[in-house]
Order: sequence, then structure tokens, then C-alpha cells
Amino acid sequence: MGRPTLNSVAEAAAVSRQTVSNVINSPEVVSPETRERVQAAIEKLGYRPNTAARQMRTTRSQIIGLCIPPSGNGVSGVVLDQFLHSLTATAERYDHRIMLFTAADDEAETRAYADLIASVGIDGFVLTSTHHDDLRTRWLLERELPFVSFGRPWGVEDTHPWVDVDGAAGTRLATDHLVRQGHRRIAFVGWPEGSGSGDDRRAGWAAGLAAAGLGAGPQVAVFDGVEGGRSAAARLLDAGGPAGDPFLPGTGAPTAFVCASDSLALGVTAELRDRGIRPGADAAVIGFDDTPTASVLGLSSVAQPIADVAAECVRQLRGILRGEAPAEPATTLFTPHLVLRTT
Amino acid sequence: MGRPTLNSVAEAAAVSRQTVSNVINSPEVVSPETRERVQAAIEKLGYRPNTAARQMRTTRSQIIGLCIPPSGNGVSGVVLDQFLHSLTATAERYDHRIMLFTAADDEAETRAYADLIASVGIDGFVLTSTHHDDLRTRWLLERELPFVSFGRPWGVEDTHPWVDVDGAAGTRLATDHLVRQGHRRIAFVGWPEGSGSGDDRRAGWAAGLAAAGLGAGPQVAVFDGVEGGRSAAARLLDAGGPAGDPFLPGTGAPTAFVCASDSLALGVTAELRDRGIRPGADAAVIGFDDTPTASVLGLSSVAQPIADVAAECVRQLRGILRGEAPAEPATTLFTPHLVLRTT
Repeated sequence: MGRPTLNSVAEAAAVSRQTVSNVINSPEVVSPETRERVQAAIEKLGYRPNTAARQMRTTRSQIIGLCIPPSGNGVSGVVLDQFLHSLTATAERYDHRIMLFTAADDEAETRAYADLIASVGIDGFVLTSTHHDDLRTRWLLERELPFVSFGRPWGVEDTHPWVDVDGAAGTRLATDHLVRQGHRRIAFVGWPEGSGSGDDRRAGWAAGLAAAGLGAGPQVAVFDGVEGGRSAAARLLDAGGPAGDPFLPGTGAPTAFVCASDSLALGVTAELRDRGIRPGADAAVIGFDDTPTASVLGLSSVAQPIADVAAECVRQLRGILRGEAPAEPATTLFTPHLVLRTT
Repeated sequence: MGRPTLNSVAEAAAVSRQTVSNVINSPEVVSPETRERVQAAIEKLGYRPNTAARQMRTTRSQIIGLCIPPSGNGVSGVVLDQFLHSLTATAERYDHRIMLFTAADDEAETRAYADLIASVGIDGFVLTSTHHDDLRTRWLLERELPFVSFGRPWGVEDTHPWVDVDGAAGTRLATDHLVRQGHRRIAFVGWPEGSGSGDDRRAGWAAGLAAAGLGAGPQVAVFDGVEGGRSAAARLLDAGGPAGDPFLPGTGAPTAFVCASDSLALGVTAELRDRGIRPGADAAVIGFDDTPTASVLGLSSVAQPIADVAAECVRQLRGILRGEAPAEPATTLFTPHLVLRTT
């Protein structure tokens, strides 16, 4: 039997090579039981980890990790492209690199964090799509690992640094515009309650109605997508009866639709057209995300400053990595703007 | 004066720290003159590079580099998302990672290669958007660095491994379908000559017309985008006179449009609608890329198997990194398929 290796320790402890490497380089990411078993195997075999590798591990890698969501998020895919490009370009200006990884769910994402810290020595992470009971931010906070999220810590205090776009301000802009145009029956087409950004966008619409003294407007929650938008519009139009005069208050079908996404808005416009209601003339529709599809189709939409968000994520993370973190977590909320087109 | 450092060498040779690092770790990426100047400074100062760092540098990093193009490529942005996700997921299955970087042009991209090899010890690269006189592939080939491209080596022999989609087969499928539908005046809306993939797509359309005995059809070359498609359709319709019976041969406006991209196809359908010609009823339009926008709008389109392309890029690169490269460069050409909708 030769000199003990990572492989022989892994075999003796009945774990993977990666786990042995984790115990050596990032013991905090391994469960106590496994850690003890691996350490016992290391001692028994007299294994000595390569010191050059360990020496390097203690220096900064200058690498930032980003988990990319599976594609298939419809027309808003281009928003991710803008985010990635700005993130990479800003990181380069600070001599950092972006490394991608995938994960099927939150738990898989935390396993990937552990793996990337141990194997690549990654410095920190940028998270996207924060949500209620976010396992990922809790995991990172418990281990005091550097990260910034695109998305607020929904449902809890500001326990970590974040950058976000004020969705409520965006739907408020849309609603105020529709009110100024004379609309009185303004519906909201959004996602089921419990989604942080979805509830935020709904709140902006509701606040706009309240400020105009219009009370609670009609709303439908569906899963995101063109078909969802179509069925939401159908339900709202069926429930309201004939549309009648768009500029008269009172009951009747909505004459304007504020939507939580461009996909939903496209479905709404399709349903309106099928019923002979012309978007932009007989009814108004405003989407969210200002995707290229919205631009091509002349759909009005709320635009998020995605490149600014990505750049700010990198700047905040860099501050943390340089030890410049303030006592309170840094938080930056960008205001979106309304792009008016023909709908 | 203390022990000489990377900084003091950089200062003495009037170059950046990075260049000194390159001379030590990847001298092949530095020009001979600069290399000599830096080596002279190293000798004069008696600088000894950190051996732990050098030791690590000789091992594989398991990292693959990918240059992401600036966004703003319109509706086809989602194709990049699919590519990135499949690339990252496949790389992970082989225990490799994807690192992103940006570059303004080919020359900047080669400088980034040099930088990434020297600073991160990157193992190889995946290139996208190959073109005639591609500086990048020549640079990598000269240095015998591992890479695979999504895109053929246009205009030269197969000097490097590549994965691509048979664009000509895609436009041929589209043209054959239109011929079977009875169309006789089938136009092509593409990009200016000289673009490898653009010329390839034009060739498939021309071959389809020739096979049907229809001779040379009308064509217009414009820059990509919805406005380009709109002006191309206007020129084709103006030149052809009234459309007349779509199913009669002879002169007259085209009744069908094969387009090199979905953006062009969207512009064509917009121009048709403005003239009271109904896409799908009075005229046929087929795009290229099968973007979500095409799906939302009911636009027929040629679909590329993007996830398969990305996975194959990683598999080929892995073979090269494992020293399994065959005598001839590996090449894989995927066949696209036609997605028929209402246009």
C-alpha cells in the first residue's frame, strides 16, 4: 500500500472525494457526523493534504458564483441576458470573474455553494429570485459567507445586503397613467399570493386605485404565461358584463389591465383581440419587464434598470470582500420607469 | 529595499502585474519584446515567483471559458439562455465549470483568453458566432490551446473541432413546405453577403427553389431586426407589383417569405398587415430560431436544437482535455426542424 491519497480516505470513510476535500478546506459545509468519520479516516491512514493546494485555498479566487435558472421563462429570458452581461462586465472592471452553476431547487443550490467554495474557492455569490422562507440566504448567513441578492429578503428584516427594483412603484406609475387617461375600471392580472415580487406589484396597483379614490379594483391571479393572461382576461371580461363606455365609472368589464409580466399582458391583448376589443383603442394594457417582445408588439410596459441592478450587486459584493461592509447590510432599491407604446 | 515582488518587477519593466504573471505562467501569450523586457527585470531584481502558485497552475482548473456577447440581439436573446443553461449543466456532469467573460471584438477576446489562462488557469474555451477570417480561432490554433466552437470555420478547412446547426437544411425545409403549399413566388429576407450563417441560410432557400424548378427567387439583404424585415418586405412588395393570385407562377409580388431570423420575419408580418395582406391567409412567413416571441405570435419558424449543441460542445472539449482528440478535428452538424404555426 502506497502513500494515502484523497481517494483512499474517501473509500475508508465511504464518502466522495469531494466530501473529503470539503472536510479539509471548508469543514463548515459538512455535517458533524460526516466530518468526524472523515477526520477519523484521515488520522487512521495518516493522510496529509497537499500543502500547495491548501496554501492557495486561503487566498482569494476573485471568482463570484451565480446560479442560472433553467430557461423557459418565456419572453423575459432576455432580462437574464442583460443581467449576465452587466454582471460579468462590472466584475471584470474590479478584476473579478463570474462562474455559472445550475441547481434544481434551493437545497441543491446550497449544496452547490458548499461544493464551489471547497473545490474552486469561490469568494462570494450573487443570488436571484429571493422569496419567502429562502433556504439559501439562511444557509449563507449562518456560515457568514459573502453574498448579495437581486431581490429583497421577503417576509423578514434586512438581514443581508440586497439590490432590487421597486415593483410597486412600477405598477403605481402604470395605474396613475391609466387614471390620468380617464380609466375607472382598472384590473390587475398577477400571480397567486405569496410571491414577494408578485405581491409587491399588486400593492402598487392597489395603492394607485386608492389614491384616485377608485376603491378595490377587480383582479385575477394566474400562473405566469401567455395562456394565464388569456384566461385571466376572459374571467375579468365575463364577470364584468359588457365593457360599455370605458370612461364611465360603475360596474362593467375592466377597460384597463395592469399586468405583473409581459407574458401575462400578451395573453390579455390576445383575448381582447379575439373578442373584438382593440388594445390601445377600446382598452389599455400595460405589461412588466419591457422585453424585446413588448417592444416589437407595441406593448406598453414597466422597464427595470437591469444593467444597473447587476452592476450594483457586484459593487456591494466587492465592498464586502474588501472588508468594507457597513454595520447595517447595504440595500439599494432602483425605481423602474414606464415605457408607453400603443396598447 | 525589501524582497522583490510581482509589483516591483512590473514597475521595473513598465508593464502591468498581469503581464508579469503571464510571462511566468503562460509566456506564449506575451509578445517576444515584452517577454524579454520582463525577463530582464526578473533577473535584474532577482525575483522568484511563488512556487505554490506555480505548482497549482500546472494542474487542471476544470474551468471552461465562454465570452458572452452584449445583449440587445433582440428577440433571439432567449437562445443564448438555453445555450448557457445546457452548457453549464453538461459541464457540471463532467465536473467542469463555466466562467463568463466579455470582449468588445475579436482582438479583445484573444487578449481575454491570454488573461484567463494566466490568471485563472482556464482549461479551454467554447466560442460562439464563428465568421470569415476569425482572428480568435487562428490565435487559439497557433498556441495549440483547447477549444470548440459553436459555428463552423467559415471559408477555411476544418482546422478545429466545431458543433453547428445546418442552417441551409432549415431554410430548405421551410422552402419545400411552401412549395408543397402551392407557393411559386417565394422570397428570401436575409443579411448582407459575407456572413457564414446568413449565406448558409440563403443557400438552403435557393436550393429549395432550384429543386422545385422555380429558378432564382427575389431576395433582399438587410441588417437584422424588425425594422430591417419591414423595409425588406416593402421593397419586395413594391418591386413585384400587386400580389395577385398567390398560387399562380409568373411575375408579381412574392406570396411567401423565408427569413434568416425571427426578428426579420416579425418585420415582414408587420409590413404585410399594414398593407392589408394577412400573414397565414394571403401570404406565408417563416422565421428562424423559434424564439418565444415566435411562439407567442403564432409565427412559423425553424428551430435549432440549442441545448444539444451546447452539450456536444462540452463533450467535444472534454475529449480534447482528456487527450482523446482524434487525428481529424471532431465536427457535429445538427439538423434543425420546422415549427409550423399560423403564418
